[in-house]
Amino acid sequence: MTATLPNLAVLSIGNELLCGEIVDTNAAHIEARLFARGFRVRETKSVPDERAAIAEALLFLARRNAAVIVTGGLGPTEDDLTAAAAADAAGTTLASRPEALAHLQAFARRMNRQLHAENERQTFLPQTARLLDNPLGTALGFAVAIEAATAYFMPGVPYEMERILEDSVIPALIEAFGDPGALPRRVLKLFGLPEAEAGALIKGIQLPPGVELAYCFKFPEVHIILRGVPESSAAVDAAQALVRERVGEYLIAEDEDTIDEVLARLFLETGATLSLAESCTGGLIAARITARAGSSAYFLEGAVTYSNAAKSRLLRVPAELIEAKGAVSAEVARAMAQGARLNSGSTLALSVTGIAGPDGGTPEKPVGTVYIALADAADCEARGYLFPGDRERVRVFTTYTALNLLRRRLLTLKG
Amino acid sequence: MTATLPNLAVLSIGNELLCGEIVDTNAAHIEARLFARGFRVRETKSVPDERAAIAEALLFLARRNAAVIVTGGLGPTEDDLTAAAAADAAGTTLASRPEALAHLQAFARRMNRQLHAENERQTFLPQTARLLDNPLGTALGFAVAIEAATAYFMPGVPYEMERILEDSVIPALIEAFGDPGALPRRVLKLFGLPEAEAGALIKGIQLPPGVELAYCFKFPEVHIILRGVPESSAAVDAAQALVRERVGEYLIAEDEDTIDEVLARLFLETGATLSLAESCTGGLIAARITARAGSSAYFLEGAVTYSNAAKSRLLRVPAELIEAKGAVSAEVARAMAQGARLNSGSTLALSVTGIAGPDGGTPEKPVGTVYIALADAADCEARGYLFPGDRERVRVFTTYTALNLLRRRLLTLKG
Repeated sequence: MTATLPNLAVLSIGNELLCGEIVDTNAAHIEARLFARGFRVRETKSVPDERAAIAEALLFLARRNAAVIVTGGLGPTEDDLTAAAAADAAGTTLASRPEALAHLQAFARRMNRQLHAENERQTFLPQTARLLDNPLGTALGFAVAIEAATAYFMPGVPYEMERILEDSVIPALIEAFGDPGALPRRVLKLFGLPEAEAGALIKGIQLPPGVELAYCFKFPEVHIILRGVPESSAAVDAAQALVRERVGEYLIAEDEDTIDEVLARLFLETGATLSLAESCTGGLIAARITARAGSSAYFLEGAVTYSNAAKSRLLRVPAELIEAKGAVSAEVARAMAQGARLNSGSTLALSVTGIAGPDGGTPEKPVGTVYIALADAADCEARGYLFPGDRERVRVFTTYTALNLLRRRLLTLKG
Repeated sequence: MTATLPNLAVLSIGNELLCGEIVDTNAAHIEARLFARGFRVRETKSVPDERAAIAEALLFLARRNAAVIVTGGLGPTEDDLTAAAAADAAGTTLASRPEALAHLQAFARRMNRQLHAENERQTFLPQTARLLDNPLGTALGFAVAIEAATAYFMPGVPYEMERILEDSVIPALIEAFGDPGALPRRVLKLFGLPEAEAGALIKGIQLPPGVELAYCFKFPEVHIILRGVPESSAAVDAAQALVRERVGEYLIAEDEDTIDEVLARLFLETGATLSLAESCTGGLIAARITARAGSSAYFLEGAVTYSNAAKSRLLRVPAELIEAKGAVSAEVARAMAQGARLNSGSTLALSVTGIAGPDGGTPEKPVGTVYIALADAADCEARGYLFPGDRERVRVFTTYTALNLLRRRLLTLKG
């Protein structure tokens, strides 16, 4: 049960990974899946499609780790050099493997495709390699010993790689190193506080032994992650309760939950309906709410009123009010929300008006100035904010703040 | 001009990078920007927030490369250990740097925020480091010599990192190694064809020597990338013209351009204005249009009409028409667009109505059925589509298709 955790490394191969044309989502996927099964990846590396560079990286990682998980470079074209480099690092040579040829032929038959002359390259694999089935593509995976470690090779096509990882690589790791058992993990998702404040909130907290706390910044959320050792679920739950107490109202969701899901549930539980009146967010809040299936049960309508004329015509905002207070003002925000509610008859109406930039700021109302109002049948409250950052960040901060205001209001409605 | 290219490495630091909690987009961004300036990244590496592991990785990469670009671990919390590890690798110690304190104080003043005790940690940087300004956050970057190489450190927050990279790191690399001159690279961005068809369109094309062609799938776009050797601009231009001829109307933008930018320019050039009426996209199209600074010059207003009542009240769609034809129909799409145009007086009005799923499909109108209508003063044309995939993909396909219809219409207006 308590096998010592092996050191594991992930190696990603491909020119495209080193000129920024694609982001290495394979490495993140492998790490997340191994982590969920109790294994930890110690380091990752990427190298280009060059035989010597790949072989060197394999040897480097094999000398420091018990296993190396490799993706990429197993395709049929001439720049696919991973198998040759694997043979170099393993001290063997390539040989045409009859099992690989049989796989190619069966795959082509199943897909009703012709085999290309190029595909023959894919039958040449290190002589000492154990082959790993790939039901979804032409490139087989394989495992080969490199010095004292084992290296597992998979194609770079994500959905093929994911299948081989589950079917062959994870079972092989468990066979070789024992099953570490899934590690307990909890996430507290916070919004509305600067990074440094997250640390201050948690300072001096006494976590149960074996529970590790980490921060993860997923703009604009701050995640506090609690990870435990095997069979420490109760300790991790206790740690989560301690942290929950510290973070208070900044907490917007936990674990697999998201603020969007929380909000959707609250709408369904309270039976409240919503209308929106957006200026600087330009439809972002509506797009976020309607991204969720079933949102038509509570979302009635939204108005994106960029022009002052639209604010007056669609939301009943008096032109004189805009003239007197400015389109970006608490008064206009309030009038927008009230107008949206009257139009739609929704339980709640939320409005935003602000200056997302880069132009339009003044000394009194700099870029980032935003007013958000929330109206119900009885009342309408408006708040002013000054959000930092560029146009995109101001729009995202505004959207999150609006969703969070809705969440809190629905919580009070729920009672 | 033809300085020898230095070997460059990218090092990403953070536990979250090794348990799959976040995908390392910073490394891809740095590689892409360096590639665009003629530099090539030779290898990348990720290590956890452990002082010894970071220092070891720095020394390893510094011995093999002329420069190491590092992100992450410069925040104010206790798991931010990069500065200490940098000092270890550089053979120096940390010292509280007065410039860093002044930066923190000025930043807090500008943001109207209090400094936290935790932030003081961010003033402790390697004694021998040259500081790199960060106008967007509390963590300064810094450059420090490690053995014969220089390592450049930046915070992991993407938009802060991107700014420091442009303002300080790339200029420092050019000063140290000379300007390699940008390698010619062209991108043709296609929309509206399945991935496999992109290959068929290009099949048998004869590219000039030294020009390399690659595909990159960025849902829902397919990018064809042409890369040349130094001083092969003319050959790459010729290749681009050849490919352009093959891909025809699928081409939506080229190189640094995007369909959003193309659309914005066309609006400004034609003087046309726009209003929107969205049902299944729920504000996504409006959010996309208004993401661009200056969009208020042509975007007047949008209505997100989820309920039938909203379609009638906000867009003048007769309730009987909805009753007779269904909310998802060419007739209702046409009425929505015409209503939006009459309300706003815009040159063009675009509407969408559809079934994004997962519920709401019928045998006659399955999930993915979408109607898009485009109205001007003279006419209103509506088209039906059946988009594949889940709710999110249907919404993205619909948004792209709508933007593309607008692009084509504006091109005819431009004449």
